[in-house]
Amino acid sequence: MASQPPPRYRVCLIGSGGVGTIASLVLTKSGLAHVTCVLRSKYDYVSQHGWDIDSIDHGKIPGWKPHRITRSAVEAARDDNGGLDPVVEYDYVVVCTKQLPSVNPVAAIISPVMTVGRTTVVLIQNGMGIEEDVIEAWPGNVVMSSVSHIGSWVEEPNGVVQTGKDVSKMGPHLHAGIEDSVSVERARRFVEMYVRGGGEACELVEDIQVARWEKVLWNGTFNTVCALMRMDVGELQRSKGREAILVPMMWEIWNTAKVAGHPMPESIVEWMAYRLPDDCSYRPSMLLDLENGRPMELEVILGNVLKKAQLLGVDTPCMATVYKLLKLEEWKGDQRRSGKA
Amino acid sequence: MASQPPPRYRVCLIGSGGVGTIASLVLTKSGLAHVTCVLRSKYDYVSQHGWDIDSIDHGKIPGWKPHRITRSAVEAARDDNGGLDPVVEYDYVVVCTKQLPSVNPVAAIISPVMTVGRTTVVLIQNGMGIEEDVIEAWPGNVVMSSVSHIGSWVEEPNGVVQTGKDVSKMGPHLHAGIEDSVSVERARRFVEMYVRGGGEACELVEDIQVARWEKVLWNGTFNTVCALMRMDVGELQRSKGREAILVPMMWEIWNTAKVAGHPMPESIVEWMAYRLPDDCSYRPSMLLDLENGRPMELEVILGNVLKKAQLLGVDTPCMATVYKLLKLEEWKGDQRRSGKA
Repeated sequence: MASQPPPRYRVCLIGSGGVGTIASLVLTKSGLAHVTCVLRSKYDYVSQHGWDIDSIDHGKIPGWKPHRITRSAVEAARDDNGGLDPVVEYDYVVVCTKQLPSVNPVAAIISPVMTVGRTTVVLIQNGMGIEEDVIEAWPGNVVMSSVSHIGSWVEEPNGVVQTGKDVSKMGPHLHAGIEDSVSVERARRFVEMYVRGGGEACELVEDIQVARWEKVLWNGTFNTVCALMRMDVGELQRSKGREAILVPMMWEIWNTAKVAGHPMPESIVEWMAYRLPDDCSYRPSMLLDLENGRPMELEVILGNVLKKAQLLGVDTPCMATVYKLLKLEEWKGDQRRSGKA
Repeated sequence: MASQPPPRYRVCLIGSGGVGTIASLVLTKSGLAHVTCVLRSKYDYVSQHGWDIDSIDHGKIPGWKPHRITRSAVEAARDDNGGLDPVVEYDYVVVCTKQLPSVNPVAAIISPVMTVGRTTVVLIQNGMGIEEDVIEAWPGNVVMSSVSHIGSWVEEPNGVVQTGKDVSKMGPHLHAGIEDSVSVERARRFVEMYVRGGGEACELVEDIQVARWEKVLWNGTFNTVCALMRMDVGELQRSKGREAILVPMMWEIWNTAKVAGHPMPESIVEWMAYRLPDDCSYRPSMLLDLENGRPMELEVILGNVLKKAQLLGVDTPCMATVYKLLKLEEWKGDQRRSGKA
């Protein structure tokens, strides 16, 4: 057996859904990382059987496992033999959970595996402003994020199906507590590792905020209104909902981004609004969450954009009303989940 | 048998649902009217069996029929023997249909039974601006309307159940083509007849527009948002949707009414928003229409208010968005009814 150099980075990945499991596979395949995955409900099944992966990028891999699987972040912070000391110090903590700040804030999720000044946080998640709480909690750590366009999901009990290629942009959230050059370098190394592991369509960008605003232009409009109206993308377009509601909302977001100092080209609104065909039957994530009685990522996708707009004095009548209506939808979901309705 | 004076007025009533059938009963009971009811789908059954009425105001009346039942307004315009001449001239045409201007405009519905300069049109219907098309078509005729708070509905095949008392305001829509005094006098006589027939809670008002604005304050908010969100009144209140959406919308309507020259007292918004208890399970008409796949009265309830606001330059961000979203709901309903979805 040929000797292999030991992995260069210790990585802890939290949130092994469709996005997270493919990311853990890519990082493991890179040969540069020792990957620990934190699994909660799936711990017992997956630690025994592994994941059965069927991926457009990586092919069929039955029974795949990362280097280590733990039940919790606290357990991941202990050494591999389960002792309390020495504590494992992670170079990268990759967060692929759903963004539900009021239920499951990221700062609390990652706290056990964070080493002050050392661990870089990689957020592979939806939404705007998701980095803020993490920077506040660890002002001397690098925080970066990924805007991912992967199409992948879990099929019970341990299948992961990926039909859309793993296309993403990654970059640092520059902030006062750390040299920009350090942030950029850590992000560069993570992207290098990701590309080496087979995530060739991963691109390093210097200002990840622009990419996040671009994505929220879609997520804040198609995703939210499809959910509210229980319509797929094509229905929303054929009903003229695009012209009546989505395009005005897109301009509200476009204006907010501009005033926030992240201007997008004007042409992006038209492109974003008209890139999908009118018979497109795609059902965005928030609609699927609603239909399956799961919490929606409303706060990070629309709530945070709206807060920014209000702070900056940008007029957002359409976005504000859609947000308020979706809060009622959220209330209904909460009632149902708590057994009150 | 004691002789009775012949009825003073010829009345044609169109739209025998829960509201219309009770109105036809009241007008018949008054002894002052000869009442012809135009029935469409129910003609065969009701002309044979009559209506089985169970009313909080009038008690149980099995097999009740008005003086005459016809299949159409055209037939109602012919004499009772079915001849083409002489044409029956009506004093009052009472319209109790659903207000769907694009599907079933009132001016077209009543056209066969209208006599220029003679027939008074009585609209017992929801919405704002419903009189305008009628006045345009018959500028020399009196047009009046009723804002009804009756609670009544049809139970198949020929039952009419009334559980909420027949409380209403009626008054003329004053317009240039006719002396105000004539309009008021015709309205007064109609109300007199209505009260004599057992509709004691019917009140004559001089400016019916104020009453219509008051009603649309409720219909344009609770009715529309309950429908959009598939929530009953209590759910909307418990979810804080009242404070987030309904009250702001009410102020938008209140402002529109004010600029339109029909100011309401400020206290009405609070009263309207908080008069029902938080456990109220009432499902407004538009919600029931949606749930049962029937067209909604969206245009007259919200569309016409919005048009007025836009014409008058009143800012209505919340109302405009709720309207646009309900248009998508309407599109879905149209698709379903036309078999496309």
